[in-house]
Amino acid sequence: MSSVEIERLIGLLAKLPGLGPRSARRAVLHLLKKRESLGDPLTRSLAEVLEGVRPCSVCGNFDTTDPCAICADPRRDDAVLCVVPDVADIWALERTAAFRGRYHVLGGLLSPLDGTGPEELAFSTLVARAGNGQVREVILALPATVDGQTTAHYAADRLSGLEIRVTVPAHGLPVGGELEFLDDGTIAAALRARRSVE
Amino acid sequence: MSSVEIERLIGLLAKLPGLGPRSARRAVLHLLKKRESLGDPLTRSLAEVLEGVRPCSVCGNFDTTDPCAICADPRRDDAVLCVVPDVADIWALERTAAFRGRYHVLGGLLSPLDGTGPEELAFSTLVARAGNGQVREVILALPATVDGQTTAHYAADRLSGLEIRVTVPAHGLPVGGELEFLDDGTIAAALRARRSVE
Repeated sequence: MSSVEIERLIGLLAKLPGLGPRSARRAVLHLLKKRESLGDPLTRSLAEVLEGVRPCSVCGNFDTTDPCAICADPRRDDAVLCVVPDVADIWALERTAAFRGRYHVLGGLLSPLDGTGPEELAFSTLVARAGNGQVREVILALPATVDGQTTAHYAADRLSGLEIRVTVPAHGLPVGGELEFLDDGTIAAALRARRSVE
Repeated sequence: MSSVEIERLIGLLAKLPGLGPRSARRAVLHLLKKRESLGDPLTRSLAEVLEGVRPCSVCGNFDTTDPCAICADPRRDDAVLCVVPDVADIWALERTAAFRGRYHVLGGLLSPLDGTGPEELAFSTLVARAGNGQVREVILALPATVDGQTTAHYAADRLSGLEIRVTVPAHGLPVGGELEFLDDGTIAAALRARRSVE
């Protein structure tokens, strides 16, 4: 029997991906024992991030600044736009340091089964950005799943009227694998071997 | 490339048991996306627990009150004291509702290899509580490991001068456990402690 406050915290922590009720319980005890070295700094850091971090109005990345650090970086290539489903994919791509262009977060994948249609995703802003005159190539970095490929086809269709190259990363990506969980080498190799969509 | 603030939060979350850098990353994204329903309530709950929850000065349990709810409960049996290494063990025992006495948290196990000696653990307060005239039995609920058994022997030795019964929980087959998947030590202990069928 632990207190109501502790049970509430365990319940909330258990909702995080990768944690269940048992590991949440262990985590709370760990936080209470390491109050000064972990608990208090974690609480402050969490409040700071939730307070200060917002989606970038240009690309959809999460950052404390808007536009985000990537969008605001003058050294990055405005001519190449990399379309990803999620912010996690930006982080995965940035870890490889294999891409120096700009990003565009769709906010998910087209999924008839889940009821995710084009209106739910950031396609209009993608077309607007891709047609701004500076962009010469759009890389559709979408997973090799049914939803991912459906989304890639739809995106290529929406972009087809523009005078730009639309590419996809090479099929070095394992079928069914999501970008977020892949090793850096595979992601980098797939980017280097990207090809035009016919 | 995520912001310094996000990286710091990922680093802190990754220190929790059961989370690594990858799952911490996913957790942070999840918190940012579910800001209202999860992120903000979790931050408030965490602050509340770290602010309000303290170790009970009697038994060592964590609670918002001191003495804790268990120590303050007049319906519990003052005659039986259950010695556990950690607060997590109190929670595990309380979930079973099989024990209605009081607890005493040692704060760990004797471990010559880790340099944990008797001074680091709550043995003096254990002897004082066990000798208060009300306690008639001390249950040493310690794990069946080398450190656990060393600690149990030491505790039994420290308590030997008192007019009380010192017991340990039975070792045997876990309820629902199949012989085939159990370790040799458990099977051997269960066999040694066999009893007649009435």
